Amino acid sequence: MDTRSEKLFFVNDYCETAHPEILKRISETAGEKNPGYGLDGWCASAAGKIRAACDCPRAEVYFFAGGTQTNQVVIDTVLRPFEGVVSADSGHVGVHEAGAIEYTGHKVLTLPGSRDASGAPEGKLRAAELKAFLEGFYADGNHEHMVFPGMVYISHPTEYGTLYTTKELEELREVCAGFEIPLYLDGARLAYALACAEDDPGLPTLPDIARLTDVFYVGGTKCGAMFGEAAVFTKGNMPFRFATRVKQHGAMLAKGWLTGVQFDALFSDGLYCELGANAIRTAKRLRAAMKEKGYRFLVESPTNQLIVVLENRKMKKLAEKVEFSFWEKIDDTHTAVRFCTSWGTGDEEIDRLIDIL
Amino acid sequence: MDTRSEKLFFVNDYCETAHPEILKRISETAGEKNPGYGLDGWCASAAGKIRAACDCPRAEVYFFAGGTQTNQVVIDTVLRPFEGVVSADSGHVGVHEAGAIEYTGHKVLTLPGSRDASGAPEGKLRAAELKAFLEGFYADGNHEHMVFPGMVYISHPTEYGTLYTTKELEELREVCAGFEIPLYLDGARLAYALACAEDDPGLPTLPDIARLTDVFYVGGTKCGAMFGEAAVFTKGNMPFRFATRVKQHGAMLAKGWLTGVQFDALFSDGLYCELGANAIRTAKRLRAAMKEKGYRFLVESPTNQLIVVLENRKMKKLAEKVEFSFWEKIDDTHTAVRFCTSWGTGDEEIDRLIDIL
Amino acid sequence: MDTRSEKLFFVNDYCETAHPEILKRISETAGEKNPGYGLDGWCASAAGKIRAACDCPRAEVYFFAGGTQTNQVVIDTVLRPFEGVVSADSGHVGVHEAGAIEYTGHKVLTLPGSRDASGAPEGKLRAAELKAFLEGFYADGNHEHMVFPGMVYISHPTEYGTLYTTKELEELREVCAGFEIPLYLDGARLAYALACAEDDPGLPTLPDIARLTDVFYVGGTKCGAMFGEAAVFTKGNMPFRFATRVKQHGAMLAKGWLTGVQFDALFSDGLYCELGANAIRTAKRLRAAMKEKGYRFLVESPTNQLIVVLENRKMKKLAEKVEFSFWEKIDDTHTAVRFCTSWGTGDEEIDRLIDIL
Amino acid sequence: MDTRSEKLFFVNDYCETAHPEILKRISETAGEKNPGYGLDGWCASAAGKIRAACDCPRAEVYFFAGGTQTNQVVIDTVLRPFEGVVSADSGHVGVHEAGAIEYTGHKVLTLPGSRDASGAPEGKLRAAELKAFLEGFYADGNHEHMVFPGMVYISHPTEYGTLYTTKELEELREVCAGFEIPLYLDGARLAYALACAEDDPGLPTLPDIARLTDVFYVGGTKCGAMFGEAAVFTKGNMPFRFATRVKQHGAMLAKGWLTGVQFDALFSDGLYCELGANAIRTAKRLRAAMKEKGYRFLVESPTNQLIVVLENRKMKKLAEKVEFSFWEKIDDTHTAVRFCTSWGTGDEEIDRLIDIL
Repeated sequence: MDTRSEKLFFVNDYCETAHPEILKRISETAGEKNPGYGLDGWCASAAGKIRAACDCPRAEVYFFAGGTQTNQVVIDTVLRPFEGVVSADSGHVGVHEAGAIEYTGHKVLTLPGSRDASGAPEGKLRAAELKAFLEGFYADGNHEHMVFPGMVYISHPTEYGTLYTTKELEELREVCAGFEIPLYLDGARLAYALACAEDDPGLPTLPDIARLTDVFYVGGTKCGAMFGEAAVFTKGNMPFRFATRVKQHGAMLAKGWLTGVQFDALFSDGLYCELGANAIRTAKRLRAAMKEKGYRFLVESPTNQLIVVLENRKMKKLAEKVEFSFWEKIDDTHTAVRFCTSWGTGDEEIDRLIDIL
Repeated sequence: MDTRSEKLFFVNDYCETAHPEILKRISETAGEKNPGYGLDGWCASAAGKIRAACDCPRAEVYFFAGGTQTNQVVIDTVLRPFEGVVSADSGHVGVHEAGAIEYTGHKVLTLPGSRDASGAPEGKLRAAELKAFLEGFYADGNHEHMVFPGMVYISHPTEYGTLYTTKELEELREVCAGFEIPLYLDGARLAYALACAEDDPGLPTLPDIARLTDVFYVGGTKCGAMFGEAAVFTKGNMPFRFATRVKQHGAMLAKGWLTGVQFDALFSDGLYCELGANAIRTAKRLRAAMKEKGYRFLVESPTNQLIVVLENRKMKKLAEKVEFSFWEKIDDTHTAVRFCTSWGTGDEEIDRLIDIL
Repeated sequence: MDTRSEKLFFVNDYCETAHPEILKRISETAGEKNPGYGLDGWCASAAGKIRAACDCPRAEVYFFAGGTQTNQVVIDTVLRPFEGVVSADSGHVGVHEAGAIEYTGHKVLTLPGSRDASGAPEGKLRAAELKAFLEGFYADGNHEHMVFPGMVYISHPTEYGTLYTTKELEELREVCAGFEIPLYLDGARLAYALACAEDDPGLPTLPDIARLTDVFYVGGTKCGAMFGEAAVFTKGNMPFRFATRVKQHGAMLAKGWLTGVQFDALFSDGLYCELGANAIRTAKRLRAAMKEKGYRFLVESPTNQLIVVLENRKMKKLAEKVEFSFWEKIDDTHTAVRFCTSWGTGDEEIDRLIDIL
Repeated sequence: MDTRSEKLFFVNDYCETAHPEILKRISETAGEKNPGYGLDGWCASAAGKIRAACDCPRAEVYFFAGGTQTNQVVIDTVLRPFEGVVSADSGHVGVHEAGAIEYTGHKVLTLPGSRDASGAPEGKLRAAELKAFLEGFYADGNHEHMVFPGMVYISHPTEYGTLYTTKELEELREVCAGFEIPLYLDGARLAYALACAEDDPGLPTLPDIARLTDVFYVGGTKCGAMFGEAAVFTKGNMPFRFATRVKQHGAMLAKGWLTGVQFDALFSDGLYCELGANAIRTAKRLRAAMKEKGYRFLVESPTNQLIVVLENRKMKKLAEKVEFSFWEKIDDTHTAVRFCTSWGTGDEEIDRLIDIL
């Protein structure tokens, strides 16, 4: 089967099987006999490397197969039954997970996502708005008949590809701490956020994230792994009987070492950072070229998702040679579309795309 | 990391990463760019091959990552909200899935599993008992306050490694048809059942299973794949909006082609049968040797699970050289344990084990 | 025990046990022996009278004990598992029911509630916005990963005490019909809406509501009954095995005739209308007096809920003599509060309140 | 409407509206204005009287409308999400509540109900079997993939009308304490159990029950109230945010005082005991007459449920003059049926029934 398209492919960052190193490492496990359900040496080794990278010796790490699954299990097990999770209205858990959170009985409590000075969407949860919401909730005497806010969900990068600064995370942390509500960071594309932090001292590093959140996950699926996400509980707060609850959700992988091996590789020799850096570097080239050519950006994103507004005829013409993804309708003659680079994007692809643009 | 034990390993059939052909095929997808969520060519190809192997052109196939997940999603989506699933009391869904079925709101309605003429457990659901249960349910005028039986769950091989004959399946089918209740077959170890059917005309083939059930799954995880199970809806009965419901359960794999590639390989060139046959052949050698040495079998199983009763001192001594799994306590001085062969068991391992026994 | 307060009580419309006729009718059942679970003659009789009042011979009626319970069971049983319910953001099901809808696994999909020409909140769902939302949902190719809109929820009167016109209901109906989505009307305070319709030909009557919705409920608890709500499925669309699902929700009353007797009384000799009319008449007197005295209304409501903005010192002084309910903080010196009349409000209470104001 | 049958009625103990004192007390609340949701003086007063009757000053009391609802909410809120409730296989929660427990995500873990020396069913949970089950559960190293036993459910009287002795309760308590599992007693018919305890020092009193269980409920619906059950948490163990969770289940009654008034009456002047005593006294007369006439009892029950085995022709003839309830088919020519006395059964009804027998 030849599924290699003639077209350039900028649809998403999970279109390739895995980075060669990952494939190699998995192949090398042939012949091993490992205990099941994540109780193997690879998971233990990978967890240790993640703890080290987070500079968080007490972190508890659990590996999942995918992002929605991770969000569902983490949120359902951290929340108490009468609680909901607070999210920006554009949050993945509230919009694109087919109601996986509500399926577990919990409400997603939404606040408007932020916009930048120009009015462009950023999709971040602002500490000030979160604080106002929480104060308002507890000020109203009638809240016994309402869903209690029991967790705060953010994604980093956000759905729009934007990033929280360390200061913003600290402010969120402070609000959460004041209300004793855990802060959860969805890091489906964390490698790309961390690569940006390499160049910008105002952005949080992995230790910053471990310090400022109660739980987060290190995305593998969209960052070079074959599949897998590593949930990291940073405060000794892994929910009681976590493995049983994972099993109850149908989310326990029999051959847990498959995730362990991959994360062991990703956190060896700086591979995770390297993969993130490739996407950011190629995105930067593409962004510069687009700006030069006068493309209009819907969002000012520093990461690997470039959301631009195209005139519809232009869009159709481009679509003959490049695959990208629909973002949203702007008006009758314009559409926002997303170009996504990844850990695997090559410079020659960027060259060709720039030519076409 | 060296996780290869000096000890012989007969704990289970999912201790190795995957058959070399599977690893090779996955590695060969490097460089491809596939659409996500199972909408790729590999899944389509694999589904086609499964349809052909089932001799069931209308079969609808959906790929999952694991067995509990498959059971949970299939049962929850096929059942109506006021229905429960009927199972033998030893059924995997009722005992070893941490309540994953109840988590989705459904009761597991249990009937006693069968025993053979000698009184040894078989764990099968008998058509006569099922019929009596269903007749009794509807005879009692008060059933409006009870959970309606809405599906029948069997596993083949069962938890005890036993097999349904074609005649038994036909009888179950007839009862189910009479009450318009779908029959679901959990084929986590289906390769091993099919290998037995090669030698025994009384056992069901894959087309028999497709014909006699409404939905079943072809197990990959325990049968040589890296991971993955193929749910097969045989009667045009895939639940409406199935993909959305899969997503809602957190069970949708972003890189669906990973399962597609594996099942494409398993159903090419008779690989699935071949892997099953290896386990059965090595189990047969082991069983014969054990019988010769006077080992007492708890269950008369024709498949790759050998459950024997050991005197506790004997068990401890064996455990120094072989890893096997605890089955159940028999009395203060005896324990039942399970030896499991697999697609990957080598004859030299059997030789060494027979020596030790 | 004397729980009669010296203070005037305008907190809500469910502070009294029941209208004397209801109490009398319940007392008269002493000595009867009725079958349980709503299978009695009183429920049958009451259902018949409701069908007649709705001019809807095919209507199926089921009695519940309370409003949240009714909303929870109706919405959960009408929705398919992958669907959510669309509601104005101020809808009771999304805000004041402690997540009872999400508890059953369904998302509440919110649209902004309407405002009148002056910008005052009305809390209605606008047909145009509903249509735009539904068109947008199906236009976006990615909706397979989203919660499907499976029902539209409105309340009449709304949370703000406002009313849908017949024309507005017809427009909503048309949109719902176009997308084959059932329209559900929460009539917790329906008596008060119907009383307004007596005087205003633009407002829907009970037959209008039965014609334009797929299911609605006739509120008893807030309209003179001791307790009880009558869910009315108007299109032969009562969910399959409804009684079993009610039982499954813990919502089946053993002595169902208690609700039957009450609704039989409410729908005899025009009692339900009469009770509604008393609340509307007394509210009208109060509203006129308030307007005359220059009170500022947060909402222009024609029903029995009067929401006014008070200067905080004024509010505290009033609170010494009158009980009313907190609505929302307006600013640091002003608060919106609600005065509520009911089926039982006497003219002398209104006189005294007007004196105090 | 005349629903009074010519036939004698021994179908159940919830066929009449309420004892006259209850009706009177409810009627006397006319004119009162009470705060909603159980935050009224009547509920407080009733709770105080129940605490006194239990000799348990720290008991926390919450009033519900019905039994299935009480079981569902108590079990769901006491259990942790990964836990199930242990019950005899004949327990009401496992059989006749339409899966209300599973609906909330929890498994009912069943053990065989007890039988007396003659082999007749008693439906009790035996401490020895419970202990063996719990020891076995924790002995098996694999229990992480199983549902944890998190609560023990018993009913008193049981489904068969039998009673636990104080000693049996103490033994259960000891096992539960050893495993730190709460013991829950369903007292839907508690008045009848307590009436028996008046005459038998081996049976538990209300203070015994409060002492030996962690939570239980005092049944109202089947014991003379119009409706209502009083859940009593005896160890300072009412679940956190209980009111919110009740609301979330749709189980919060707006006019909570309706239950408060009734339980205030039931626990004034010994009414609850008196009502229980009437049923027991009339049951005793009926039982003696039946034994004298040679009726065969399926169960040896001391309470108000008399389960006898009738030859089918005899049953049909009786059914012309008396209403009773079907219990179970015994064989092709015999059926077990139940005659139920109640708080309201009159001696003249017993006289007439004895004549007919």
